[in-house]
Amino acid sequence: MLSVPADNQDHGANRPLPRDAALRGRAEQVIPGGMWGHMSAKRLPPAFPQFFRAAQGTRLTDVDGNTYVDFMCAYGPMILGYNDPDVEAAAAAQQAIMSIANGPGEAMIELAELMVETIPAADWAIFGKNGTDATTACVSIARAATGKRKILVATGAYHGAAPWCTPWPGGVVAEDRAHIVNYTYNDVTSLEAAVVDAGKDLAGIIVSAFRHDARTDQEMPTREFAQAARSLADRSHAALIVDDVRAGFRLDLGGSWEPMGVAADLSAWSKALGNGHPIAAVTGKDWLRDGAQSVYLTGSFWCAAAPMAAATTTLKKLHELDAVVQMVRMGQRLRDGVAEQAKALNVGLRQTGPVQMPLMLFDDDADLEKASLFTTTALRHGVYLHPWHNMFLSAAHSEEDIDRALEATQLGLKAVAAATT
Amino acid sequence: MLSVPADNQDHGANRPLPRDAALRGRAEQVIPGGMWGHMSAKRLPPAFPQFFRAAQGTRLTDVDGNTYVDFMCAYGPMILGYNDPDVEAAAAAQQAIMSIANGPGEAMIELAELMVETIPAADWAIFGKNGTDATTACVSIARAATGKRKILVATGAYHGAAPWCTPWPGGVVAEDRAHIVNYTYNDVTSLEAAVVDAGKDLAGIIVSAFRHDARTDQEMPTREFAQAARSLADRSHAALIVDDVRAGFRLDLGGSWEPMGVAADLSAWSKALGNGHPIAAVTGKDWLRDGAQSVYLTGSFWCAAAPMAAATTTLKKLHELDAVVQMVRMGQRLRDGVAEQAKALNVGLRQTGPVQMPLMLFDDDADLEKASLFTTTALRHGVYLHPWHNMFLSAAHSEEDIDRALEATQLGLKAVAAATT
Repeated sequence: MLSVPADNQDHGANRPLPRDAALRGRAEQVIPGGMWGHMSAKRLPPAFPQFFRAAQGTRLTDVDGNTYVDFMCAYGPMILGYNDPDVEAAAAAQQAIMSIANGPGEAMIELAELMVETIPAADWAIFGKNGTDATTACVSIARAATGKRKILVATGAYHGAAPWCTPWPGGVVAEDRAHIVNYTYNDVTSLEAAVVDAGKDLAGIIVSAFRHDARTDQEMPTREFAQAARSLADRSHAALIVDDVRAGFRLDLGGSWEPMGVAADLSAWSKALGNGHPIAAVTGKDWLRDGAQSVYLTGSFWCAAAPMAAATTTLKKLHELDAVVQMVRMGQRLRDGVAEQAKALNVGLRQTGPVQMPLMLFDDDADLEKASLFTTTALRHGVYLHPWHNMFLSAAHSEEDIDRALEATQLGLKAVAAATT
Repeated sequence: MLSVPADNQDHGANRPLPRDAALRGRAEQVIPGGMWGHMSAKRLPPAFPQFFRAAQGTRLTDVDGNTYVDFMCAYGPMILGYNDPDVEAAAAAQQAIMSIANGPGEAMIELAELMVETIPAADWAIFGKNGTDATTACVSIARAATGKRKILVATGAYHGAAPWCTPWPGGVVAEDRAHIVNYTYNDVTSLEAAVVDAGKDLAGIIVSAFRHDARTDQEMPTREFAQAARSLADRSHAALIVDDVRAGFRLDLGGSWEPMGVAADLSAWSKALGNGHPIAAVTGKDWLRDGAQSVYLTGSFWCAAAPMAAATTTLKKLHELDAVVQMVRMGQRLRDGVAEQAKALNVGLRQTGPVQMPLMLFDDDADLEKASLFTTTALRHGVYLHPWHNMFLSAAHSEEDIDRALEATQLGLKAVAAATT
């Protein structure tokens, strides 16, 4: 059992955030539950703010004026720093001339060309607004191109909030999952069994870039698993779909499975693509062009030029900065520092997944009380960490940011150590 | 048969748009079919440009430098004029401080409060990015709140591009429509029959604001139909869902069914809400709050503050300008003028739907050749009309714009008259 010191008894519930509390009260009146979706602070320890008022570089400021070094990056979209001057200049310049119209601007072609150039498995691109737009389009394109129906999905994997994939049962009918077959990530035997189960009706296999399920140690895909997914898809004339919505452009600019030499037939992109500007993309191989054309993929803002200009600038800057190397360097500094602290304090802490998308979970912490105490303590000391979701580094994170984080993690780990002894 | 004059034989296929043609060639390489979705110019007569380079007020400029008075408003999102200075100032000011973060800003509450204040049937609001996000959320919320499954949808109605509602069969499996029951818009008997068919499993009835199916004369809902939809939903403890994505804020700021005194349980909004900034919303009645909370509705950019600031400014400005009255006045001027021209030329033309969202279809024109000749002629004279989709007026359209349009329609109607005699 966790013995929480007196001043931390409430895990920060009494941390004074009067403006945040007032806004929560107002929000409760006009929004069901005060907030919907993955950004609801009700899913976090009580000390976490719900509302923010400023975001610059790696710093977030809540509505009560507390500023944090942020390690969530808006759950992924921020990859160059909030309000990156180059991205904002490109978006604003395009917006001033034209964003929406009765058709796209040249910005759409420039972005598609850059993605095809950057991503070896991409022969073409289509754009949308949400990660869910992209993953759902991949499923529909795979079905249209193959004339088959079954889609293999890893148990517990998050691929968006549409009825076929949402993690919550509310509003879902059984038929939404009629042709979904589950397998276990990184388990070749289970994938093979799912392929057998799907039989001649296999349209596609969808895989996350790596196993990044919340509240679970992260796992990189094994080369054996990735190659099996590729060859099983080939043998069934099905599409291998890599869901790179969350991880895209943080592991490899060419796609997260590219370093393993495994080419996706279809890839879904979103979050980091426009450094926060709303955009999603599907890229695919030539054999799926006709399938893509036969699916009605559309939305009122899907051709908006300003987010495309933002995305083009984001991708170019990621190349120029060698951003992945930079994020790995800072992520490794954080991981090594925290590991050393935990070891010295004899706290059982598991840091998993790629260092630039770290997850920290404590041993013997099924109720996440240690995680809550750890992240609440860090929050009080100006560092925003997440208790059970993977975090995100960006190319804007500096050594100073990491060192600030390490001061906070040291205090957080000490609090956990004190509470467990 | 239509006898097209020699210089119009190709309906404008040879109209010189060299830059557009070059961009189409580039796009074809990196985008399946060169363009996806509702903005593909391949669905339009050949003289229509695919790519645009500027949008200001009511004027669109294509990549070859031709400027048009626009009557499509980007298929609806533009309602105050492209690049409206007040909306852009609000969005830019918010963007400079914060748009995305690890949670929303106060802008979300302000917008939700304004929508609840503006829309009598709204007790709460939730925001997304696409019209399809909003309609799909309405269906899921109705199912979650009622614990039932059947959704009644009018045959031929467009409610978005998700598998449950997309107008194209590509990528759709039969189970996606397992609990969809069709009825005929404005036909009380067919609606009653669909309710009987759904039996005790009726979760919701979705209706478009008015019948605005493409290529079909538009119809306003009859009061009898609207009241029947309301009472049938009540009797079955089901949700009445008004899809106001396309029509929202053009018929009545309080909701398109509000003037008939029929309150929606759930309404879907998007297009015009942010004057082009990407945003969608669901509003609903109190009894659906719990249902809304039980559905996992989320997306990476759904809390972005800049489009919310844009939407708040748009709604306020629509109020201040008495925008609906202004759009009706201009729409009526266009309708009356075109009707007079058609009558004088003895051309059978049907103008249907609300004057601010007009559709013009010719008699004896199943292959849309007259529509093509009419709109192509107008396009050559600097006015962008649509041959088979409803058009959109905005609060920025002036008497001068309408008079410019009437010069072009006169020429278009003359061409049709000449070709048919």
